[in-house]
Amino acid sequence: MILTVTLNAALDITYRVPRLRPHGTHRVSEVIERPGGKGLNVARVLASLGHEAVVTGFAGGGTGDALRRLLAESGGVTDALIPVAGATRRTVGVVDAASGDTTQLNEPGPQVTAAEWDAFTERFTRLLGGAAAVALCGSLPPGLPVGSYAQLVREAHTARVPVLLDTSGEALRRGIAARPDLVKPNAEELAGLTGSTEPLRAARDTRRRGARAVAASLGPDGMLLITTDGAWRAAPPGRLTGNPTGAGDSAVAGLLSGLVDGVPWPDRLARAVALSAATVRAPAAGEFDRATYEDLLPRVTVAEQPAAA
Amino acid sequence: MILTVTLNAALDITYRVPRLRPHGTHRVSEVIERPGGKGLNVARVLASLGHEAVVTGFAGGGTGDALRRLLAESGGVTDALIPVAGATRRTVGVVDAASGDTTQLNEPGPQVTAAEWDAFTERFTRLLGGAAAVALCGSLPPGLPVGSYAQLVREAHTARVPVLLDTSGEALRRGIAARPDLVKPNAEELAGLTGSTEPLRAARDTRRRGARAVAASLGPDGMLLITTDGAWRAAPPGRLTGNPTGAGDSAVAGLLSGLVDGVPWPDRLARAVALSAATVRAPAAGEFDRATYEDLLPRVTVAEQPAAA
Repeated sequence: MILTVTLNAALDITYRVPRLRPHGTHRVSEVIERPGGKGLNVARVLASLGHEAVVTGFAGGGTGDALRRLLAESGGVTDALIPVAGATRRTVGVVDAASGDTTQLNEPGPQVTAAEWDAFTERFTRLLGGAAAVALCGSLPPGLPVGSYAQLVREAHTARVPVLLDTSGEALRRGIAARPDLVKPNAEELAGLTGSTEPLRAARDTRRRGARAVAASLGPDGMLLITTDGAWRAAPPGRLTGNPTGAGDSAVAGLLSGLVDGVPWPDRLARAVALSAATVRAPAAGEFDRATYEDLLPRVTVAEQPAAA
Repeated sequence: MILTVTLNAALDITYRVPRLRPHGTHRVSEVIERPGGKGLNVARVLASLGHEAVVTGFAGGGTGDALRRLLAESGGVTDALIPVAGATRRTVGVVDAASGDTTQLNEPGPQVTAAEWDAFTERFTRLLGGAAAVALCGSLPPGLPVGSYAQLVREAHTARVPVLLDTSGEALRRGIAARPDLVKPNAEELAGLTGSTEPLRAARDTRRRGARAVAASLGPDGMLLITTDGAWRAAPPGRLTGNPTGAGDSAVAGLLSGLVDGVPWPDRLARAVALSAATVRAPAAGEFDRATYEDLLPRVTVAEQPAAA
């Protein structure tokens, strides 16, 4: 079983409007709701790939109920979310039909209490007992200390479960210091963490800060992976067009999938890049197109990079 | 008891963002939820004025549950909403803190079935038995025929309950043909209905189409009232600044309040104008400021207009 943690899960709402006019009134022509938050997206992709995926984190209020109902309806993923008194946040994506662009409005999320955090960590420790790998994904809800992910990384080490961390800002910085097995920052997060906009240099610096391996997503340029065994760069064949929403989460799923299947690092990276590309090309935001994935996987180019400087 | 009908009630959500940037990603700094829809707003103002107010219409899904919970918490208004399978719509108002302007996104609302409409009309007829007046407010949800308000106007006539209609477009046109006691269009709705941008002429035309009386809201210029007894124009003292959200609903409450209290038409109009102005000046959108209302009421100027052309 692969465990994913989403401490700030969301009810993702997509509105389609003919054209977004600031300060205007819009009749929304289409409303789509889906369970959201990075760890939930990762688990959905893992389940599609045939893995047993369990999601934990927090859910509360009417929005939390809606999220759990949609999660149950979609099937494939086991719900081990912990109830909280506060309401699960909404994220509202307003798609301008004229341009195809999205304007995103993200609520902060529920205030999580110390008692709720204790209930979560107890459940988390129990779930680790059955996990082949764990991914810690996304932002922290209000009320949780910035070192929360670091605590979970240490719990995973104690349980001897490989742990991947995908977050940003201070939570990423603190989490890395607890020595996660893998982090998956994007170029912007890498730069924010290290001050360097040169990905190879920034990724090496990230390893020095504590991450055992770094898989950096570089948007259309593919991914860069640095581990104790070597460094590789991988890119999809040809230029991609489409919606990048969820591409990073699909990459995390690819890395975890390869990890639990015991394939070598370059193959894990290829899975991550192919899944990511198949997500960009899928018609629905955040979904991946299986035929595209299977077509792309053997055609991803993986090139070894110079040994650590 | 005063009955208000809101067929397309809403969970009104207000987001505050530092500055709205189309196609950008925004962290919402403040989330406010309140029960919405014109009839609910009217009932809230009526209850604040000391009237017994009952709301009916439809509520469904998690958003409907949230709306009913907030309605119960706010107190004062009796909930006689009918459950529907579809989910109550959300309206999202995004307030740009830099400019104070609001960008509004309104969901269409639930698909109401014929069986749900039957359950509603049965309840409506029963509620009319105890009503001194009824107001039919706002847009129709998807699935309801455009003549639905006309049917409710006729039911009110049968029950001998004075009926006010406040809607727009074809639902207004069809409703007027069923001869409501009062309609409250704004200048834009009047023009859409009659083709005339001259309010006095358009209001007279509206009476010829079937409305027994017309109270037209003219924004900062106050209101125009035409009845079988005469015509009046009323304006607040001085220029108003503030948020006009809910000002029209407060005007409806003022007209109903004066009707059930049996005061003459010019006094009803003064209440409508003073409440409307006290809503524009209130710090929170859609609320009215009681002290401002009591201060303004005796100072509203009401001028008789020329007899019908």
